[in-house]
Amino acid sequence: MFEAILENVRRKTPLVHAITNYVTVNDCANIALACGGSPIMADEAGEVEDITSICNALVLNIGTLNERTVQSMILAGKKANALCRPVILDPVGAGASALRTKTVQRLLEEIKVSVIRGNMSEIKAVAGAAADTKGVDAGLNDAVTDENVHEAIRFAKDLSAKTGAVIAITGAIDLVADQSKVYLVRNGHPLMAKITGTGCMLSEVTGCYCAANPEKLLEATAAAVCAMGLCGELAFRKMQKTEGGTGTLRTYLIDYMSNMSPSLLNGGMRVETR
Amino acid sequence: MFEAILENVRRKTPLVHAITNYVTVNDCANIALACGGSPIMADEAGEVEDITSICNALVLNIGTLNERTVQSMILAGKKANALCRPVILDPVGAGASALRTKTVQRLLEEIKVSVIRGNMSEIKAVAGAAADTKGVDAGLNDAVTDENVHEAIRFAKDLSAKTGAVIAITGAIDLVADQSKVYLVRNGHPLMAKITGTGCMLSEVTGCYCAANPEKLLEATAAAVCAMGLCGELAFRKMQKTEGGTGTLRTYLIDYMSNMSPSLLNGGMRVETR
Amino acid sequence: MFEAILENVRRKTPLVHAITNYVTVNDCANIALACGGSPIMADEAGEVEDITSICNALVLNIGTLNERTVQSMILAGKKANALCRPVILDPVGAGASALRTKTVQRLLEEIKVSVIRGNMSEIKAVAGAAADTKGVDAGLNDAVTDENVHEAIRFAKDLSAKTGAVIAITGAIDLVADQSKVYLVRNGHPLMAKITGTGCMLSEVTGCYCAANPEKLLEATAAAVCAMGLCGELAFRKMQKTEGGTGTLRTYLIDYMSNMSPSLLNGGMRVETR
Repeated sequence: MFEAILENVRRKTPLVHAITNYVTVNDCANIALACGGSPIMADEAGEVEDITSICNALVLNIGTLNERTVQSMILAGKKANALCRPVILDPVGAGASALRTKTVQRLLEEIKVSVIRGNMSEIKAVAGAAADTKGVDAGLNDAVTDENVHEAIRFAKDLSAKTGAVIAITGAIDLVADQSKVYLVRNGHPLMAKITGTGCMLSEVTGCYCAANPEKLLEATAAAVCAMGLCGELAFRKMQKTEGGTGTLRTYLIDYMSNMSPSLLNGGMRVETR
Repeated sequence: MFEAILENVRRKTPLVHAITNYVTVNDCANIALACGGSPIMADEAGEVEDITSICNALVLNIGTLNERTVQSMILAGKKANALCRPVILDPVGAGASALRTKTVQRLLEEIKVSVIRGNMSEIKAVAGAAADTKGVDAGLNDAVTDENVHEAIRFAKDLSAKTGAVIAITGAIDLVADQSKVYLVRNGHPLMAKITGTGCMLSEVTGCYCAANPEKLLEATAAAVCAMGLCGELAFRKMQKTEGGTGTLRTYLIDYMSNMSPSLLNGGMRVETR
Repeated sequence: MFEAILENVRRKTPLVHAITNYVTVNDCANIALACGGSPIMADEAGEVEDITSICNALVLNIGTLNERTVQSMILAGKKANALCRPVILDPVGAGASALRTKTVQRLLEEIKVSVIRGNMSEIKAVAGAAADTKGVDAGLNDAVTDENVHEAIRFAKDLSAKTGAVIAITGAIDLVADQSKVYLVRNGHPLMAKITGTGCMLSEVTGCYCAANPEKLLEATAAAVCAMGLCGELAFRKMQKTEGGTGTLRTYLIDYMSNMSPSLLNGGMRVETR
């Protein structure tokens, strides 16, 4: 299903510029390399346009935002827009502070974003920032479940229509949507939430997949979500065998991403379209 | 002995805000998750008060301090004080530069700190900053040993009286003291000093334990010290079996923290009170 | 061949001050400890001179440079020069942005650098910044091969003459040169390029080796290059046995550095002088 998506990443080794947080940046760089990309992290206003210009995609992650780096995100984002390169936004902690919510709003106003990837509570904060005050359905829980999946799909499609971006909401069930099509992904393992940065890493992998497949952003994002979830499952199983814990799980997660292939993904992904 | 302390952490999943250094921040986030907490790193003045407000404790670590983040530490610390949330101070490298010593002094003047965790040389620099010039006993070595333990206890109790904080001095023998009671902990392994950030990680775990046990800061800190030391011992033993080195040791350290339980701790901790 | 170099590091536990990037800084600190050094990261202008003063070497890495930290690099570099401590420059991404190239030029103008360590494309950008416009041979490929090795040696010796620094160009074949002597090193494994920061880590190890051997910078740098490459080979072999990937490879790399010894190095290094 996603064979060509994965093969393009390995074949092209796309350069991906990330302005991201310092908590998970090392894992992001390592998983970008593992999945077939080539990461560059640079956040100084005086060079971000140069760096974006030589890259195939831009990832913006507000996990440890500050005034200086937000300014750099806007410069880099405008340059990526001018060059028609995909821009992936990870609105880490949107809703947790006024600054984060306001920054997401500002980024969405000034930059055309191609993919927004977050958990449900973050994406709801994005929706609140992107749209009228009633953009967020207060009845929607903070996780996609079999019970609320129809409502979640409608929410994601609406947000995609409003923003023009592919929307990826990750959790027990992951949902990747544009205005007309939705992928539901049931890969992953709950213990992944006990490693910092699995979300950030997924956004970085999404950046690499989109960079190598700029004409297929929905499929590329869905493929990244499946690959990451599957790596988590495989890592969990190997962790159990070696009687490890979450430190080992993190290492194995990157291991499996470095060994990910179309056939491995096909054999393990659990995805349906709606 | 510390059963309730550990159970509270796993049950409450306390949120802990850290303004910390970029060298060890990823390990701090991972060990916070491993021990049962939920870490948030945020250091921008414009949001730290918001973030502290939704958290159960605040960890301040000056390992890579700068003017911007020191200002944020003060804002966050004052907010934590106003909300009666525990504040843990890790005075990394106090004494190594005038700026660090001065910053510790400023933090102690402007913020009521609940726990101070460092090695002996750092805590001596804190004492010099917190008290009159004779606050530091020049005769006290830079490690707690069986020979100087009485002197070290007196020093720690005095510093606790002066600052109102629980004092945790870690080394071959760890000492956790308030004005009236002292825990001596003999867990740990010398090779832990060859992993960067074991001190920072302990301060983060202390933040999680205190966040879930705000009425028992002395016990929570002692439990964190025991747990971290025991994880180091267990990690060292497993590292030897797999013929690894310090990279593997770091991974196993986080593994054991993720598997830590009251019964495992009870079986392995070596602690006495004075 | 390098016995004394390695023994000096383990015996002296040299302090090394690094102003470096936040992507790979944790691995740099861990590999510094693993190889026998003691790392301090500090980048605030108000303290870098204090920190450099207590250290035995300074590592400057421009991987995530910004205006604030470049200023700190210059202050620290001048202090290191005044105290005759080795300064190692890692020009990460030189050539990728005007800011990086300009910053390298500024650093070389204001600081006497002892060792410059980068890949061929970075070192070519350094040469362009350090010398007249014709400093870079446009015909020189971006990797040292058996075919262009004579040309590469001439280039490295020339750059050493111009800058007064030991030049280390790393790739499939590594080249460590001063004006009169060159080491060619054939250790290493291609998969090391799929771990972020192997170059940064090598520069950090070089800092530790030079700090402990300030009178033998060429030999110390060559030893660091051999040791790092050998660790990569050994890590790759163990990774294959445990059926791991690049996450595991990173862990084993640091493991082997922590277990590196003169006899292990002698048994595995593939080095020749020209």
